[in-house]
Amino acid sequence: MANKLTPRSTDYSKWYNEIVVQADLAENSAVRGCMIIKPYGYAIWEKMQAELDKMFKATGHENAYFPLFVPKSLFEAEEKNAEGFAKECAVVTHYRLKNDPDNKGKLIVDPEAKLEEELVVRPTSEAVIWNTYKSWIQSYRDLPILINQWANVVRWEMRTRLFLRTAEFLWQEGHTAHATKAEAIIEAKQMNQVYSDFVQNYMAIPVIQGTKSESERFAGAEETYCIEALMQDGKALQAGTSHFLGQNFAKAFDVKYATSQGGLEYVWATSWGVSTRLIGALIMTHSDDHGLVLPPNLAPIQVVIIPIYKGDEQQAQIAEVAQKIKASLEEKNIRVKFDNRDKFKPGYKFNEYELKGVPLRIAIGPKDLEKGTLEIARRDTLSKQYISQNDIVDHVTGQLEVIQIDLFEKAKNFREENIREVNDFESFQKTIKEKGGFVSAHWDGTNETEEAIKKKTKATIRCIPLENTLEEGVCVFSGNPSKQRVLFAKSY
Amino acid sequence: MANKLTPRSTDYSKWYNEIVVQADLAENSAVRGCMIIKPYGYAIWEKMQAELDKMFKATGHENAYFPLFVPKSLFEAEEKNAEGFAKECAVVTHYRLKNDPDNKGKLIVDPEAKLEEELVVRPTSEAVIWNTYKSWIQSYRDLPILINQWANVVRWEMRTRLFLRTAEFLWQEGHTAHATKAEAIIEAKQMNQVYSDFVQNYMAIPVIQGTKSESERFAGAEETYCIEALMQDGKALQAGTSHFLGQNFAKAFDVKYATSQGGLEYVWATSWGVSTRLIGALIMTHSDDHGLVLPPNLAPIQVVIIPIYKGDEQQAQIAEVAQKIKASLEEKNIRVKFDNRDKFKPGYKFNEYELKGVPLRIAIGPKDLEKGTLEIARRDTLSKQYISQNDIVDHVTGQLEVIQIDLFEKAKNFREENIREVNDFESFQKTIKEKGGFVSAHWDGTNETEEAIKKKTKATIRCIPLENTLEEGVCVFSGNPSKQRVLFAKSY
Repeated sequence: MANKLTPRSTDYSKWYNEIVVQADLAENSAVRGCMIIKPYGYAIWEKMQAELDKMFKATGHENAYFPLFVPKSLFEAEEKNAEGFAKECAVVTHYRLKNDPDNKGKLIVDPEAKLEEELVVRPTSEAVIWNTYKSWIQSYRDLPILINQWANVVRWEMRTRLFLRTAEFLWQEGHTAHATKAEAIIEAKQMNQVYSDFVQNYMAIPVIQGTKSESERFAGAEETYCIEALMQDGKALQAGTSHFLGQNFAKAFDVKYATSQGGLEYVWATSWGVSTRLIGALIMTHSDDHGLVLPPNLAPIQVVIIPIYKGDEQQAQIAEVAQKIKASLEEKNIRVKFDNRDKFKPGYKFNEYELKGVPLRIAIGPKDLEKGTLEIARRDTLSKQYISQNDIVDHVTGQLEVIQIDLFEKAKNFREENIREVNDFESFQKTIKEKGGFVSAHWDGTNETEEAIKKKTKATIRCIPLENTLEEGVCVFSGNPSKQRVLFAKSY
Repeated sequence: MANKLTPRSTDYSKWYNEIVVQADLAENSAVRGCMIIKPYGYAIWEKMQAELDKMFKATGHENAYFPLFVPKSLFEAEEKNAEGFAKECAVVTHYRLKNDPDNKGKLIVDPEAKLEEELVVRPTSEAVIWNTYKSWIQSYRDLPILINQWANVVRWEMRTRLFLRTAEFLWQEGHTAHATKAEAIIEAKQMNQVYSDFVQNYMAIPVIQGTKSESERFAGAEETYCIEALMQDGKALQAGTSHFLGQNFAKAFDVKYATSQGGLEYVWATSWGVSTRLIGALIMTHSDDHGLVLPPNLAPIQVVIIPIYKGDEQQAQIAEVAQKIKASLEEKNIRVKFDNRDKFKPGYKFNEYELKGVPLRIAIGPKDLEKGTLEIARRDTLSKQYISQNDIVDHVTGQLEVIQIDLFEKAKNFREENIREVNDFESFQKTIKEKGGFVSAHWDGTNETEEAIKKKTKATIRCIPLENTLEEGVCVFSGNPSKQRVLFAKSY
């Protein structure tokens, strides 16, 4: 707690790692690339889950649970999907350990317990789910199927970072089946909109909705919708994706339905997901050199009350006032912590909650007892105010709303300032290198150009914005004709 | 839906399997022993999770998340625990697949991607968690640690059954660390009490709290507290366990704390868990030959409204009434479904919700429109009543409470009728064989006797009840002196 954070300007990446650990959000585990999500970090995830889950249910989805393991033969059925994930699969090959005959107290894998068919630990569940949908879908009456799953998945990434890229992560994955192409596309767009609403309204992170270029699409998708956010270091972060899968999985698993006219057609599919990666985006969007800054809508503790006292008698008197304030706030469903621990000094506590990003901090001292006042401080602006204890409920209610909006506006202004139109490749390179952010530029629509730009600048196409104005132009790299600008950036 | 269930009296086990599938709760997957939990089954699990989670939080616990994988060297650190689970471990040995050079479009495990150290898919998380607690605990100030995790675990069982015993299952596992033995024992007992309260009050299943004999204890525990329920076929089912782990894991992972007096002591531990197995208990306790019977407190749909009409006009008129009733019930937080699907007949719908165990069914026909009445039927008793539409809210509110209590009382009476004291081994054998249920008998306290009884009767000691009256006696098998009766039964 006593450690000072490395300032963002000195080393952004180090700042991020320190904040995750010092704010007690997560830490690395003994398993390469797998993280431990600590209670404070997990409490944020629970809030996110609760809101997303409500939104999924409000749009007609139900939760279900499918197996962790995917038999290799199912995994490889949809070839593009398999190709996309094969290189990062954890594979279960045996189902038993036995005592090591050469080493007492140690265990070895029992060679006699080799599986006939290896099991892939799911990197995503399309294969296992579409193999199941095959038996669930016979007729148009069985459609649509609108299912979501909250689960852990494993992708054996070589370079990992807490929350942003871990070998195991928690996520939700929606998997829907539809009678028509149009309906599936509407679903994929709808869920991308749900993600956008959630990330903007709860996480206070402005996002740009768009589609991915072919090379950035989900393996097995015909179209990938996405929401893209901009971090404080000028790098983009893909915050959620929703895929129109066409009939690829239906064909791979032979899922057909009898139409109302008596025909037999392949089913249309979508899948969509967001993960604990969002917590990384949350941290990087709002936090500062003092620590985490949390938007009130997701903060596990929205208000902390810290007593400042000398001796037991004062402590008791202040505690009485603090408890009353706490109760009056909790009546309005505000999440309050009264930190009355005697073994830590107020200064230590101030630091702790600053580091943990609690949106509002109330301090009550002996003078406040006399005057009926208290000090209230905003975490995001670090500004303080003295107010009457009688005004506390209205003040806090109002301030939590203001902070939520201010965080969004601040991030949005930063994002707007960091979208730059460029029209020649020299400026493109210079902007990416010196300023970062999104570069809005004409692109000729080919993989080759995208690849060449990536090689030269490390920037990729983050998305083709949904709300794009079409305009004639020439590709910033090839000089070939282009119909619209797309957004490039370096990314997480 | 049209299929009739095999009656319990004909084949209880077949009845169970059919009900799980036909009531749309779960099904087997392509992965041996792993189940798919379907939306209706998962909705029950969500209700259970929500209530348990509240109870855990109310007793001071926080949620966190630890890795799915346990490196083999950590797994084997606590020898008894490792020995207990080694034979049923799924083991990850590789982290990549590659194209099969001999077989286009197929994948093989890449031999070059062999892990240096194999990873066990967690069968339980003590090892990975205590390896973490080592760095979290330095001083008495860091204690207690009260953490729960909602997760999937894998135990490679050879004989599996939906919900009751599956290779992968969902559960929660609490893992706490304490400064003193006394505090850890209080925690273990408290959580067993929480389980008892939940299972009795929400699942309407009466349980007996007790401790396990040594041979039935959790591998690595010094004492296992449990709750035991009795199924309709006279077999017992362990519904939850809470373990006092002593200092076993602290010693295995070298977790010591500085006491307030300046000493250095090993930390005391507990762990406790319930799983999707509880859904199996729920089904087997209350359901009948018509299908599932759900206690109102956990039913995803508490009341279903089915319209009975001819023609569009009648349908519209009835729908108006039904929607009003639905709204008035939902105002009281009652979970209502109005099934206005035109493509299914009322009789089909009656069967469907009977099979799915919806506690109350309302039917509204043309005559009810005239008379302002409706028909309301209880799923548990299959009894019907005609009541005024005006009385619906009070009636439903009252009936849901009554059903909840009646289900518990019915199950409790059954349980009481099926606890039999026996005092000689011939009666013991006869009772177990012919009547089943719990047999209350004196036992000399040795593993040998327990093992011999198990061999001869397949009955094991389910628990040593917490509320046992001590009485002098002689062991039903060995004739050696005994101080108390214990409960034997065949079990799931």
